[in-house]
Formats: sequence, structure tokens, C-alpha cells
Amino acid sequence: MSFDFIENGSPTTPQGFLATGVTAGFKRSGAPDFAMVLSETAAEFAGVFTSCTFAAAPVRLCQKLVQESDSLRAVIINSGNANACTGDQGMASAVKSCEIAAGALGIPVETVAVASTGRIGVQMDMSLIEKGVALAVPALSADGGNLAAEAIMTTDTVPKAAAVEVKVNGKSFRIGAMVKGAGMIDPHLTTPHATMICVITTDAAIPKVQLQKILAVSADNSFNRITVDGDMSTNDTVLILANGLSKVEILPGSAEETAFAEALQALTQNLARRMVLDGEGATKFVEVKVVNARSTEDARKAAEAVGNSLLCKTAWFGNDPNWGRVVAALGYSGAKFDAAKCDIYFGEVPVVKDGGDAGTPEEDLLATVKEREFTITCDFKDGDAEYWVWASDLSYEYVKINADYHT
Amino acid sequence: MSFDFIENGSPTTPQGFLATGVTAGFKRSGAPDFAMVLSETAAEFAGVFTSCTFAAAPVRLCQKLVQESDSLRAVIINSGNANACTGDQGMASAVKSCEIAAGALGIPVETVAVASTGRIGVQMDMSLIEKGVALAVPALSADGGNLAAEAIMTTDTVPKAAAVEVKVNGKSFRIGAMVKGAGMIDPHLTTPHATMICVITTDAAIPKVQLQKILAVSADNSFNRITVDGDMSTNDTVLILANGLSKVEILPGSAEETAFAEALQALTQNLARRMVLDGEGATKFVEVKVVNARSTEDARKAAEAVGNSLLCKTAWFGNDPNWGRVVAALGYSGAKFDAAKCDIYFGEVPVVKDGGDAGTPEEDLLATVKEREFTITCDFKDGDAEYWVWASDLSYEYVKINADYHT
Repeated sequence: MSFDFIENGSPTTPQGFLATGVTAGFKRSGAPDFAMVLSETAAEFAGVFTSCTFAAAPVRLCQKLVQESDSLRAVIINSGNANACTGDQGMASAVKSCEIAAGALGIPVETVAVASTGRIGVQMDMSLIEKGVALAVPALSADGGNLAAEAIMTTDTVPKAAAVEVKVNGKSFRIGAMVKGAGMIDPHLTTPHATMICVITTDAAIPKVQLQKILAVSADNSFNRITVDGDMSTNDTVLILANGLSKVEILPGSAEETAFAEALQALTQNLARRMVLDGEGATKFVEVKVVNARSTEDARKAAEAVGNSLLCKTAWFGNDPNWGRVVAALGYSGAKFDAAKCDIYFGEVPVVKDGGDAGTPEEDLLATVKEREFTITCDFKDGDAEYWVWASDLSYEYVKINADYHT
Repeated sequence: MSFDFIENGSPTTPQGFLATGVTAGFKRSGAPDFAMVLSETAAEFAGVFTSCTFAAAPVRLCQKLVQESDSLRAVIINSGNANACTGDQGMASAVKSCEIAAGALGIPVETVAVASTGRIGVQMDMSLIEKGVALAVPALSADGGNLAAEAIMTTDTVPKAAAVEVKVNGKSFRIGAMVKGAGMIDPHLTTPHATMICVITTDAAIPKVQLQKILAVSADNSFNRITVDGDMSTNDTVLILANGLSKVEILPGSAEETAFAEALQALTQNLARRMVLDGEGATKFVEVKVVNARSTEDARKAAEAVGNSLLCKTAWFGNDPNWGRVVAALGYSGAKFDAAKCDIYFGEVPVVKDGGDAGTPEEDLLATVKEREFTITCDFKDGDAEYWVWASDLSYEYVKINADYHT
């Protein structure tokens, strides 16, 4: 089996998916702010969501759909208003949004999902949803995936979409996806989080339960590994729709299933990497890897502490090979390890040897940390568990964006 | 009983304490970087320290002293080299530093404590310790406390010292203190942390065990409540010396003990507040209070999540009354509470009512968040536990300081 990324791939790359993005008026800027994705036939679906106590109304509505609906036809997404902390009226607005879309598309309301991103605590202006739906339905197209990717952006600087074609046992199917998210990004939970909305489409045929399982693993190894600012959103939503139009059945334990899972993983990692690179104000992409730890949990705590450390992030921004901050973060992470055995590498260059300075000349360290992308490897020499996260740095620009952002 | 802050108070305000600060050469700038505090008689002492796995050599040495020594005479502190991650040689250097000071002062080596702050991973230049001691010993003076406070600064912009005089049952005693610390400040642990070094002196007579207990409570309600950047240092040290020269005995359960504990609390809170106000790049002082929570642990998690949230901190810097970020942080904090019952106030102004917008006009919220100091109160209406933290905002200047800092 093999898979390849398709140029300009998007949620409309798989067969039988239409999409578009239009300007409904949620954003003051007049930029596109309402997206619609439609499967021409009923699609199996699955989802993972924020675990925030204040989960927004659209998140709770989607969670109910995942529990109760057999199939999905459409997803609508608005950017500019998160419909979070909006109480009963907010939930009524989310339901009404689905009704408006279902009516215009002539499909059952329980086959429409909704996601929202933007300002928290503001009631939805339903006339904007009506306008968005009215503009989107006639504009739906088989090459509209990239327009949809653009319409879901908030502080993102570039739209993020991709698709892969998978070949296995002489057959082929496709998976497409779009994602938004550049801040409120943190890997602390077992379900995806961060102000991120991701819609994945595939023309493979795969039942809901199996889809849910593969999606969860995939999200755990991609969106759950990235950190921009350690904050988590009320609105995180990852949805996958599988309409089966490729006629390729993904049976449990089959080569097709392995191929599907691997391709989905590559696709979500591709998008997760681009979320970090497009992180608010980010100038660096740093992979923090902890290896030979006593347990995965120890490795995870250690990697996340370094990836979330403001002192590490500002040092990376400043091209400062100050490994003391990495050591300090490992030290307070709560991970169990023997400080006197710990080795640290910046790229391939040894920095710390057995808990002390490895004696590498500062110029060699500088050469690594000046790169736009580099890896920090922490070797605990104390077991065989490992974990990695992808982190951005912290720049003036991050502060500016977030001190000034009022959708 | 009563207590009053003494103008220009410092560690030399209590009877029988001498101190000074000199330039030994640890700092490239030529600013004072070596401090010495001496008690004229043997002092009972206690300490609390970083819980970082990579605790620096001087920290481990002080912990040993607390376990094994009966009394303390002197504390030496250098700023510019943390002597952390320096292995066996680092520990030898810490021991040697105490020996040099003990020799010059003519006191037993086990009565000398050492603390270090500055760059991690660099071996100590012992000639600088020799120079520091040689300059400091003849300069020790009964009004040198403020010089010492200046010599322990790193990125601090102002020295931080204070003293109180306590009157109880017709007698009086004094407590003085100095602290440094402006970054690597976070309240996550049960022992103090942050790149902070605090030396407290008192002429009250109080035995070690009792002193340790009162110090721990005091630190827990002051230094453990502040957050600048959520990072924790390898070198945090709080030491208290009690030489008894006031002849006021602090007996367990006495009015004197209550007075001592209250005055020490006021003193450490005074210093902790000033650490936040002097936090790297800080422009705001925000008290985050969670009240009526199910448990203190829930209240703590919630308050710390808000106090550490980059999105909240950047909003405060931008005078942005965006309560959605507070709600998001409460939501991901892990605290158990009912989102639909949560009220939030900025100052006295209701912002969130029962989990949704309280409907207060934005101008009224703006008036609060434009203040240099304000309180955010989160009322969970779900119990009677509470917790508070003191947080700074996050500014361009924080990023600048930490992207550029190489001691």
C-alpha cells in the first residue's frame, strides 16, 4: 500500500463532497466567515471534542449527534462568534442554525453538524446564519474545499487544507481535511483541544465505531501533540465524514484499515505541523522529544513542560541556546527521572551529559537554535518509554495579537 | 498586639544582624552581585526550597544544613551564576564557598548557608567567591540590609526589602527580610519556587521546629500564590534566622506566637506582592479569587489556571475585558464546578452571571481592566472553599527580557 498527498487537496478532494466559504458578516473585516461542507450521500461520521467544562453550545450539539445520529450530510461552520457561554439561548441558536441549513439543503436536521469559533459570550445573530446559508447553498462546489478552509480562519495567517490518495490492494480512496487554529493551543487533554476546528472527509466506507477509534488515535498523535500557548478552547471540534463512494470497504484488521489509519495519521500530522508553524506570532517549530523514560506518562509530562515553558519559548525566539531553561522545565515537570543520568541534545549536538554541561562550544549550539525548525531530545536513560510534542516559540507578535484581538 | 512596617526596613532591622552587598564580578555589568548576612550570635533557622528535580548544589547544601545543623550564623548569596546542573564539582564549589566565608568570619562551616541565582550550567569561578568574601566581611554593617537586597537582584528592577516591628504583651521584636525574583515565577508547588531567594531575619527567640512550621504556612500564603510566567527555578530558597536577641520568647500557642505568625505573613505577602509588581515586564497586578468552590483544591486549580493563562495575561496587558478567556481557563483547569452556576466579577462589576454574559456594558468593564491593580472574582456558588493567586500580565517587555537574557 502507499499514499500520496494531492496538490491543493482539501475536504472536496474525496468523491462526493461539495463545499464553499462565503461572507455572512460575522467578521468586521468582511473576510469570508461561513463555511459549508456537504456529502452528496449519507456519511458515517465520528468526532472528538474539547473537554472544557464550558464546552460551547455547538460542541454539545455535535456530541449529541455523535451519540444519536446514524449519519451526517452536512457541516456548517462560522468564524467570528464562538457561541460559547451563551446559555439556553446559545443552544437554541445552534439547533436553529442546523434547522436553517437542513431546510435550505432539503435534508434531515439530525444530519447537520455545526461548529463555531470566535468571541466567547456573545449571542449568535441568526440573521447572519440565514445569510450564510442562503449564500453558501448555491455556491457549493466540488472544488470549494479551499474556500471553506479560508472561511474558518480567525487569527490564522494561511488556510490549512490537505488531502491524500491511498492505494491498497489495487483499489484507491481519498481522505481530505481542513483545519483552523493558531492560538489557544495546548496538548493537555486526551481529546483534542485548542481553538481548533477540523473537518475531515473520506470516500472510504467505514462504520462509525471503527471510524471513532481510528480518529481518536490519529488526533492523539497529532492535534494533541502541539502547543502554542498552553490555553485550551471551549470550542474544539474534529469531525470526520465517510461517505463510502470509493467503494473501498475498510474492514477491521484488514490491510485497508492499516492503510486508512496510516494515511489519516499522516494527514492530521501534516495539518498539526502547519498549525504550529502558523501559531500566533510563531517564528520557530521545535520538536521536543523525551526518550528512554520510565513511563509514557513521565515522558509526556517532561515533553509538555518544556513545550509549554515560557522561558524556553522566549529563549527559542531569541536564538538563545540556554539549555538551563530546558533543564528547569524538566525538573519541575513532575516526571520521574534521575537528573544525574539525563542527556540533552539540540538537533544532533550534545548539550547536557549526565545532568551537567556537555562542554559543546556555544557556537555549535547557536547554529542549531538559529534554524527555523529543530529538535530537542531529552534522553533519561532510565527506561524505554517516549513521547514528543511540537511547540512554537513565543514572540512579541504573540503578545500583540492577543493583547489586541477582539474578533 | 500590633505590628508596623518600618521605613527602609531590611534584614538588618532586627537586633544583631549585619549585612552588605559588594561587587565580586559575577555580573558583567559590574553591579553588586555578592551579599552576606551575619547574625552576631548563633541563630535558630529554618528553610523551604524548590522542589525541582534538578535542585541546584547550594539548595541541596542548605537542605542538608536544615536537617543537620543546630544553628546558623551567616548566609552568602551570589547573583550571576546559579551553580545548577554543575554536578559533583558544583557541590564541591558550594561547600568550598561556605568554607571560605566561615574562615574569613571565624565561625564553624556548618553555620554558613549559601544561595545562588543566575545562569544554569556554568561552573563557579571560586576566585569570585574569594573576592566577594574578602570585600564583604570588612563591609558588614548594621544598616547594610538594603545593600544586600540590591546585590541579590538579577532581572529585578528594584531591590525588595522590608521589616516589621511587633508589639505584644508590652514587649517588642522585629522581623526583617529581603527577596529577589522577577521571572521563573509560578505557584504550582507546595514549597516555594520561582527564581526567588529570600532571607528573613528576626530577633525573636523561637525554636527550629516551630520556626519551620510557621515559615511553611507563611510561604504557602505568599510566595506560593504568585505567578509571573508559570516557570519554576532550580534555585528557590527561603531561609529564616532567629537570633533571640530581643529576649522575646515565642512559645507554642502563645499570643507571641500568633503575633509572630501574623507579622511574618504580612511581611512575606508584602514582598510577594512586590515581586509580582516587579515581574519581568509586568504592567498589571491581578488578584484572581475563586470563592464558594467545592474544595480548596478545586479553587486552587481554577485560580492558578486563570493566573497562568497566556491568553488572560495578554488580555490584561491589552486592557481587554475579554472574560471569555477567563471562562476558558476555568473550564480547562480541571476544577470541578457547575458552569451554569458560575458568576464572575471584574472588581465589583458583574461580568458573568450563571455561566453567561451578565449584560454589563463594556465601558464599565473597561474602567476596571484599565486599572493597574484589580481583582477577578469567580464565584462557583457550589461550596465554601476558596483560594486566590496574584498574577502579572504578559507584555512585549517580558518577551524582550527573556529572549535577550544571558546573565
